Amino acid sequence: MSTGDSRASDTIDGEAAIIDLLRPLATDPAALGLADDCAALSPRPGMDIVLKTDPIAEGVHFLAGDAPEAIAWKALAVNVSDLAAKAARPLGYLMALSFPAPPRRAWLQDFAAGLKAAQDAFGMTLLGGDTDRRPGPITVSITVLGEAPKGRMVRRATAQPGDVLFVSGSIGDAGLGLQLCQTPRLAEAWGLEAAQAAFLRRRYHRPEPRLALREALRAAAGAAMDVSDGLVKDLGRMAAASHTSAEIRLEDVPLSAPARAVLAVRPELHAGLVAAGDDYEVLAAVPEGKARDFAELAARAGVEVGRIGRMLPDGDGAVSVLDRQGSRLTIERSGWDHF
Amino acid sequence: MSTGDSRASDTIDGEAAIIDLLRPLATDPAALGLADDCAALSPRPGMDIVLKTDPIAEGVHFLAGDAPEAIAWKALAVNVSDLAAKAARPLGYLMALSFPAPPRRAWLQDFAAGLKAAQDAFGMTLLGGDTDRRPGPITVSITVLGEAPKGRMVRRATAQPGDVLFVSGSIGDAGLGLQLCQTPRLAEAWGLEAAQAAFLRRRYHRPEPRLALREALRAAAGAAMDVSDGLVKDLGRMAAASHTSAEIRLEDVPLSAPARAVLAVRPELHAGLVAAGDDYEVLAAVPEGKARDFAELAARAGVEVGRIGRMLPDGDGAVSVLDRQGSRLTIERSGWDHF
Repeated sequence: MSTGDSRASDTIDGEAAIIDLLRPLATDPAALGLADDCAALSPRPGMDIVLKTDPIAEGVHFLAGDAPEAIAWKALAVNVSDLAAKAARPLGYLMALSFPAPPRRAWLQDFAAGLKAAQDAFGMTLLGGDTDRRPGPITVSITVLGEAPKGRMVRRATAQPGDVLFVSGSIGDAGLGLQLCQTPRLAEAWGLEAAQAAFLRRRYHRPEPRLALREALRAAAGAAMDVSDGLVKDLGRMAAASHTSAEIRLEDVPLSAPARAVLAVRPELHAGLVAAGDDYEVLAAVPEGKARDFAELAARAGVEVGRIGRMLPDGDGAVSVLDRQGSRLTIERSGWDHF
Repeated sequence: MSTGDSRASDTIDGEAAIIDLLRPLATDPAALGLADDCAALSPRPGMDIVLKTDPIAEGVHFLAGDAPEAIAWKALAVNVSDLAAKAARPLGYLMALSFPAPPRRAWLQDFAAGLKAAQDAFGMTLLGGDTDRRPGPITVSITVLGEAPKGRMVRRATAQPGDVLFVSGSIGDAGLGLQLCQTPRLAEAWGLEAAQAAFLRRRYHRPEPRLALREALRAAAGAAMDVSDGLVKDLGRMAAASHTSAEIRLEDVPLSAPARAVLAVRPELHAGLVAAGDDYEVLAAVPEGKARDFAELAARAGVEVGRIGRMLPDGDGAVSVLDRQGSRLTIERSGWDHF
């Protein structure tokens, strides 16, 4: 239990004490100071409300010893990552917290500080929530709200055969970072410098939603989604929803310098990186005629995007991963199914 | 584990299979057929979006042996009850489901049927969600969305000294029903007929949000909230938020005929009924000049409301419960704190 010794005197007991500690996060008038049963959000005219809920639980989505700031950041970031891929602007979030035992005050203060850092970075505030005590893992259930001009949310099911596939940032870092968190001696086995190992661990703990891609996606993407359960699995979902299939070249999937350093020692890990989870990058299907615009708008926004392949006709969602010679690779496990 | 024997052959494994089973609930275009990462809701012009999240967990908010239809109904109803008290019209909901082991298909089908019944009754549909497997109790985390004319959500913190306090329906049934579920032989000890015991158990399992009160609340209430953690505790919350105190007469708190039958045998249980949880009735503070209107509009909508007391000045949220002689009663436990 990562909230510390519940016998310690400085535990927090009671919903009211927890709400008091979180109230400074609820600065939007819509939150009514967390003093009401509901929040009341006034949408801007002409805007759709974009919604997502994705809870995280100790032992499943984060590790028992993780710092409370990191847990808080990740709980919000994994949801905001979906808004980013939909070209939606974050507005606010509701949060339900469950603890098996009263948390220590210091733990909850650090958790609130992590939320504050995340909500400030993403441009949103806490709108409401709930706390309870129940057996089982600590759970942080966040629902995020964003806005997009009416009808303009970038969708998943609207990719077309021929669309160019782009992915932001780099793929596979978080999967390697998780392995380093679980088995720290791997850093040495992989010949990593301390800074390289720290980069990969941070990519696991602190996903950075690609909110800066909003204009590029809205201007040029035919379809988009965030990559959270592994590139191949998520691309398969986009292709299936769009009634297409997809082909990507493993060599073209962008990798970070630390990930390349790992592959220099362990080249057999390469194919597994496109099945590792927790990337929280954006996958976009862009019509050929807009591919240059997309890359330019992304670059102008400070986000690197890599061209990794193409959507193909006659699709049932199949994804082919090609090697340097154009042969199909077999990806043993395509990605995460949380169930 | 109430989802049945996980070794049975007919279990559901995988997020996709669960989503397929829930897709018929997602009929609103905003849900995008559950085929996207997010929902996109187009608010009606001039409307605020009213939001609430309140998860329920096995062993805490429902019992391990409860029927899946009842769990589903309750999971949605406890959230919609908040919308009802705010005079908001339900629009839709997001739902995150967590199971410690794959549920049986029959269990999930019954759960979906319970959701269908509830969402049809409340006039809303499923907009999106998430499923995962994790240790701990089965958890149903619902976030509801409703709408209210801009700025017109009925609030909790806006009661005034002098306001007349009303409560809908009857209080304490669900608390007695829970005791009957936990200790069935109490029905005989309390001298209840089968239908009376069934009524009380149903009041625990199947809360009926008071959506019909919407017009009465909007026209006449100065403040309102739903009663879910015990009348005295929730009234104390309203008084504290409104900087008032409150006084109610125990004799005036409306009781059902089955609850009166219990009190005929066990009169010492009377005061405890105003501290029992799970009522899911509406508590309203109504200016004296509108009290008659409120009662008439409620009656016209088919909802009985009882006048139970008054808001008083100089408040720190204290609630006095008076007996027939006007003496203050001591309520040993004022209600539920879920923490």
